[in-house]
Order: sequence, then C-alpha cells, then structure tokens
Amino acid sequence: MSDPAPFEPACPFPIENYPQVLLAHGGGGRLMHQLIQRMIVPAFKNPWLEQQHDASIFELGGQRLAFTTDSYVVRPMFFPGGDLGSLAVHGTVNDLAMAGARPLYLSAGLIIEEGVAMESLWRILASMQRAATAAGVQIITGDTKVVDRGKGDGIFINTAGIGVVEQTVSIAPASIKPGDAVLVSGDLGRHGMAIMAVREGLEFESSIESDSAPLAGPVRALLDAGVEVHCLRDITRGGLTSVLNELAEASGFPIHVEEARMPVREDVRVACEILGFDPLQVACEGRMVGFVPEPEVERALKIWSGIEVTAGAVRIGEVGQGGAPRVILKSTIGAQRILDMGSGEQLPRIC
Amino acid sequence: MSDPAPFEPACPFPIENYPQVLLAHGGGGRLMHQLIQRMIVPAFKNPWLEQQHDASIFELGGQRLAFTTDSYVVRPMFFPGGDLGSLAVHGTVNDLAMAGARPLYLSAGLIIEEGVAMESLWRILASMQRAATAAGVQIITGDTKVVDRGKGDGIFINTAGIGVVEQTVSIAPASIKPGDAVLVSGDLGRHGMAIMAVREGLEFESSIESDSAPLAGPVRALLDAGVEVHCLRDITRGGLTSVLNELAEASGFPIHVEEARMPVREDVRVACEILGFDPLQVACEGRMVGFVPEPEVERALKIWSGIEVTAGAVRIGEVGQGGAPRVILKSTIGAQRILDMGSGEQLPRIC
Repeated sequence: MSDPAPFEPACPFPIENYPQVLLAHGGGGRLMHQLIQRMIVPAFKNPWLEQQHDASIFELGGQRLAFTTDSYVVRPMFFPGGDLGSLAVHGTVNDLAMAGARPLYLSAGLIIEEGVAMESLWRILASMQRAATAAGVQIITGDTKVVDRGKGDGIFINTAGIGVVEQTVSIAPASIKPGDAVLVSGDLGRHGMAIMAVREGLEFESSIESDSAPLAGPVRALLDAGVEVHCLRDITRGGLTSVLNELAEASGFPIHVEEARMPVREDVRVACEILGFDPLQVACEGRMVGFVPEPEVERALKIWSGIEVTAGAVRIGEVGQGGAPRVILKSTIGAQRILDMGSGEQLPRIC
Repeated sequence: MSDPAPFEPACPFPIENYPQVLLAHGGGGRLMHQLIQRMIVPAFKNPWLEQQHDASIFELGGQRLAFTTDSYVVRPMFFPGGDLGSLAVHGTVNDLAMAGARPLYLSAGLIIEEGVAMESLWRILASMQRAATAAGVQIITGDTKVVDRGKGDGIFINTAGIGVVEQTVSIAPASIKPGDAVLVSGDLGRHGMAIMAVREGLEFESSIESDSAPLAGPVRALLDAGVEVHCLRDITRGGLTSVLNELAEASGFPIHVEEARMPVREDVRVACEILGFDPLQVACEGRMVGFVPEPEVERALKIWSGIEVTAGAVRIGEVGQGGAPRVILKSTIGAQRILDMGSGEQLPRIC
C-alpha cells in the first residue's frame, strides 16, 4: 500500500542491537530503562519527562498539578490480595502521591479482548470503584475498546491521574541530598511473589497476598506533620533494586543500603529461593522508599509505624557523598557489592 | 486457586443476554452505548460520567479543567493520511476541544506486543510528537508495558489529556436547545474508508486519505470570535449517526437532518457502496458536529470555511422542539425515516 514514511529524526536508541521489542523492555529493569531513556524521552523531548519522576508537575493559574499514567496488564487478573482493577487504581494513586500530590481524579481506559466474561468485567470495574472510594479519588472519564480474540489478553486497563500539589517544596529525585536516610515503608516482594505463586501453581503453608494498597495516606501524614521529605518513589517493576538505581542515577549520588535491614517476610524469602528470584528485584504495589534528612528519620518512622500500610517501615541505608551514582549493598557478612539493576527478564507482566 | 469473590453490587447490565464481551461492544454503536450506560457509568457512578461528554470538567482553585482519555487500537498502524501515533494525539486533543477546552498536556501509555519492530515504535513515537507539536500540546508523562507475543497486537496507545476551559459558558449536550442549527465541519466517512480500503486491499482511482486532524484550532476560532456554541462533538466510532443519537438522547430533543445536505466525497460514497457501508455510520477522526443558535449559523460557517480542516463545513439540520429524542433523516426523495444507531459490528478497530 501507499505509505511513504514521513521524515523521522534519528533515533538515539541502538535499534541495531535490539531490532524488536522484547518482553524485558517492559520488565522494569535495565532494558526498559534504556528504552525509556534513549527512545521515549528523546521522542517527546521536554523538561517534564527529563525529570524522571513518577508524576509530572505543571503549573496552571498559580496552582501546581501532578499528572501521571500507567497501563496495567497483570496476569492473572485476579490474585491473592487484589485484582487488576484495584491495582490499576492503587498504582496511579501512588504515582501521584510520590510527587507529593493529593490524588483527585482518575481516567479509566479499557482494552478488552473479545470473549471476556461480562461477569469478570463487572468484578474488575466494581473493584476499581471500591479502590477509588477507599483512596478518595473519583473516576471521571473513560473509554472502552474491544480487540479481536487472540489480539489482546483479557482486560488491559490504563488509568491516568490528576492531583494537586499543596506544599511548596519539591519532592523529587533532584531534591535528594548526601546524608539523606533511605526508608522503606514495609516488607518487600509480596506482590510479585503472590502473582508468581499463582502462575506456577505453588502452594505455600500460608498464602502470600499482594501488598497492593494506596499510599497517599501515609505520604499525606508526613507532609501534614511538616516532615521534610526529599524524595518518594513507589516500588513496582524491578523491585527495590530498580528504584534505587534509578534514583542514584537521577540524583547523581551513590546510595548505600544494608542487606540485614531489608524487610522480607520469611514465606516470601522461601518462595523467592524456590523460584530463583532475588527479593530485592521483585515488585511490590503498596511499598515506597522515602528519602529524608537524618534529623527527620525518627519522626517519619514513628508516623508511618502508626498507619497500617506502613507499619513495617524501617531505615535501610543512606545517600553517600561522593563516587559514582551507584547502589552499594553491604551484605549480611559485611562484604560490599554493587547492586545492579536486573535486565527485567525475570518477572513479565507483574503489573 | 483461592479467590473468594468480594461482594459486588448488582450489575444493571443484562449479563444474561450478553455473557461475553463482543467486538461490537467497542464498535461505537448500540451495543457499546448499552455497555457504557448500563455497566461502566453505574460502576463508577458520579455526576461527571453521567454528563456523557467527551471530556469531564472539574473545578480546581477557581479554574475549570477538562480531563479525557482514549485508547487507540486501530489496525493497520500505518494508513493513508495518518498512523496510530498521530491518531492517538488528535483524538484526545479533539475530545478536549469538544468541551471547549484549550488542550495543554497529554499522557502516553504504550502497550506493546513482544516482537514489534523497534523501527515501527520509533516512527509511531515521532508521529505522536509531530502531532503534539502541531496541536500545541506537550506529552509530559508516560508508561510502557510489553505483553507476550500473541497477547496483544502491535502497539496500543492510551492518551489522556488535560485542558483548561477559559470561557464561562458550558459547551455540553445539556446546553443543546430546540431550534439550534446542526453543523458538520467537513466531509464524512473518510477515516473509516481509508482504513477499510487498506484492510480489504482495495485500489480506488484516488487514494482515500484519513481525515485525522486536530480540531482545537477551529473550536478556538469560534470561541475567540464570541460565537455562541451550545455543543460540539467529534465524529468517531459509529459515525455521524451514533453522535447524533447520543446527543438526541443526552439533550432530550429530536434532531432533524437532511440526507441531501450530507457532505460525502464521491470516492468515499463509491467505496461505501462497494463494501456495503452507510457513510453516515463510518468513523471520521477530524470532523465534528456543532450546535449553534440560528442567528450564529452564518458567522460560524464563515469562520470555519476560512480554516483548512473545516473548510467543508455545512449545515445539515436542526434541533426539534418536541417528540421523542430521536434522529430523523429527510431522505433525498423527501421521505422521513428514523436514523437508528447501528449495532457497532461493521467497523471494528477503526480507532
């Protein structure tokens, strides 16, 4: 057919090395990071995307608003501790919260495969609404597309979200400073292991439930108490390892963490061993890292410990002064090693 | 697996009649309308969705903002007159414009099937950026997911958009009044026929190119000139017929239109005849209907005639006073018939 390709600018992504998109390009690891940094950000070149933040902030009429989007393609659609619908609400609410925004409104874009049971669709929609109500947001606009059987996979959901940033300080990777303490808000790796246990048909003594939850409440609690927060990031694809690597790169500082301080539940640790995963690379959907200056650590942890979803918050390390912007892990036996981002091949379609 | 279904409210959609999602549930016709009105709107029950508008308007700090979302799953990804990328920008820009908003910021959520050529991805992204620049919007936040081969179909794009509503009047279905003239901004059915011609491998004497284009400019031109505009709606899935039926229902008034006034290009009319389509049910992606009071008709048409994308604007009918909220077509031989919404089965994945 007649399709003269219009002029394209040169692509900074090394297409010769990766002529086709791989599953790992969506896996939250090194390959995805490269695709975003060398293809997507350059394509849309603007200062917002270059901030590498979960949500972009813009000003309008003297107000600061946050805007974010995420698509959700997790399989299976229903899993212990949640489902595609609640995940699609929590994930976007959390991306807004990570920018210090109060989440207000969501959109819902559904891409449904022909043949999906209407009953399943209704359950997913009802779950979205319950999650939205619990998180204090409204789903005010939507779209529905249907694709032919075999051209989709059940239901995919995109949610975009708008929030308002009420404080004047910027909670962002660029605000991270040497000496900041690094906190995590609870135990790691449960969402990923809940999904993998279902996929692999594994039965553990206790069921591992996803940690999927909205985090706007505990963020608001810190801000309302006047805690000085430098940066927040929810831990999703690629796990803690990807988040810390991204933030080391974006801030320009090394991050030092200790293996012995990492909160991982025993059943999750066992499941990870059986399936050959590193819990620090496994996705959460209701956990975040927080960067606060040393004098604020005690107060921040006290506030979080009083809120159910962050009751397991601990300090795992601190931001270093000099050296390459890497993540350095002190192992339980005292050795230091660089914690590299995984390629992203291990856990496809976890969110 | 352990999956105790949480309590769901009763679903007002007749699941017993449609236990599974059909392709037609995304086709822009009667079945899609029913799915939205009886399942999706009730699930998220709130006044915004009940307005049945292309974009939802909310107030924040004394400003009125518009928010909208659409996913794009068109096949093929490249077609005469456009591609998936430009379509994904134009469609969302247009939804904002239809609410009288000035489009400002877009999000981009990509769902990519494993194996897509990187080169195609880059072409689509570059096309999005060109379209965004031309429409005066910025793509400030994004997300990338990859699904396994055979679980998607090339690239799906969701774009959500934010705009600001600067005028005080409400451009919405509820503002339609008896006696309003009904305008269309240009010739009908080109986008759908461009896609179908490619799919069917048809060769016409002249290539039919999609009308895909941003409409924010011609909307702004009316508003800047102070033209009183009651309602605008872009003509997409289901064509003019679906749009007019939706607006008759939403406004509560009948809409009378004349077949002889419908602008359909000769090659599009021929293609429709060959393929068995009604041009009034075929999608456009750069056309809108406008409802203006009688005294404003001449001025509105004059303004639009001076802008390339709306140069073919004409008046096709008017809003009636009483009777059922239906669409009545006066045929070329003078007979009147009710123009019913199609089921939506004819043109899957047109946008």
